[in-house]
Amino acid sequence: MAHIQLPAGMPGIVGPLSYSPETAKPLLELAEVLLRSPNTLTSADREMIAAHVSYRNGCDFCQLSHSAAAAAHLHGNYELVEQVKVNPVSSSVSDKLKALLAIAGKVQQSGKQVSAADVALARERGATDKEIHDTVLIAAAFCLYNRYVDGLATWQPREPEAYREMGEQLAHQGYTRDRFRETPIATQA
Amino acid sequence: MAHIQLPAGMPGIVGPLSYSPETAKPLLELAEVLLRSPNTLTSADREMIAAHVSYRNGCDFCQLSHSAAAAAHLHGNYELVEQVKVNPVSSSVSDKLKALLAIAGKVQQSGKQVSAADVALARERGATDKEIHDTVLIAAAFCLYNRYVDGLATWQPREPEAYREMGEQLAHQGYTRDRFRETPIATQA
Repeated sequence: MAHIQLPAGMPGIVGPLSYSPETAKPLLELAEVLLRSPNTLTSADREMIAAHVSYRNGCDFCQLSHSAAAAAHLHGNYELVEQVKVNPVSSSVSDKLKALLAIAGKVQQSGKQVSAADVALARERGATDKEIHDTVLIAAAFCLYNRYVDGLATWQPREPEAYREMGEQLAHQGYTRDRFRETPIATQA
Repeated sequence: MAHIQLPAGMPGIVGPLSYSPETAKPLLELAEVLLRSPNTLTSADREMIAAHVSYRNGCDFCQLSHSAAAAAHLHGNYELVEQVKVNPVSSSVSDKLKALLAIAGKVQQSGKQVSAADVALARERGATDKEIHDTVLIAAAFCLYNRYVDGLATWQPREPEAYREMGEQLAHQGYTRDRFRETPIATQA
C-alpha cells in the first residue's frame, strides 16, 4: 500500500503524477526533453542510461519501464538492454556509450564521484560536452524519479506485459501526454 | 574547473542552467512550485528540507544557497537553519517538521528507506498527505540538483556574502527569473 492516498489503479510514478499535477508538469517536461528531444545520443541510448541508473537504485518500476522504452526504440532487443542495465562494460554498445554509462553510474552514487579522468575518457571516445552534460542530468533526474516512486511506496505491476505496453507508449508517444494525469491503466492491488 | 565548458562567472547550478535552457525551464519551474508556491508548509520549512538533504549529499553550493534562502524567510535566523541542517532532531522546530525531516533524510539515501512507521509518525504529529508527498519530492529533487551541480564540477563561490545575496533573491524573487539564464554574477575562479 502506498504511503499516502493516491488515485487508484495507476502504476508507479503515474499515481503521484496524477495526485500532484503542478509538479507533474515540469517532471514530465524534463523527461520529454532528456529522453526524446533531438540529440546526438539516440533515445535508445538515453533510455538505457535511465534504466541503468534505476537498476542501480533498485527501483523496479523505473528500471522495467525504461528498459521497455529502450527496447521499443531497439525493435525489441531486450537482450542488449539487459546487458547494458546490469553490466555495461561487458555489453556490446559503443565504447563512447560505455564511458557515458560509467559517468552515469558515478552520478547515481554522488555527483562528487565523477572524476576528470572519467570525463576525459568519454571525450577521448568521442563524447561531446552536451552528451556529457545530458548524461549527468539524465542520471541525476533518475535519482529523483526513483526516489519519488519508492519513497511513496507506489503500487507497481508485476506482469512483464504491463511494462512492455508502457515502453511502447513512452517510446512512441512520449512523456507529456494527458494519460499521465487521467487514465488509470490497471486495478490497484 | 568544471568538467565541461560552461558560461563563465556563473556560480553552481546557474552555469549548467545557462548552458542548457531547455532543461533549465522545467528544473526551475519544479523548484518554484516545490519551494515557493502556496503550501501549508512555509517556504522556510521547505528550504530547510532542501538544505538538510543537500547537506547530507555534501553539496556545498546547494546547502549554502538554500540555507541562505531559508534564513531570508526567517528574518536572518541562521542559527535555527544550521541546527536543522546538521541535526534536526535536536533543533527547535516543531515535532511535525522533525518527522518530515526524518523522511527527507531517508529519501536522501533511497526511496525504499522510507517506512510505514516513518510516515505514521509524521501523520500522528499532524502532517497531511500533501505535506508528506511534498517532503518526499523536495528531498528527491535535491538528490537531482545536488548531483547536477557536483557531477559537472561547477564553480562554487567561497564567500558567505555571495550566498547571503543569493538567498535573499531566491526567497523574495524566486526561481524562475531570467537572471538564471543571462547574468553572470561573479568572475569564474
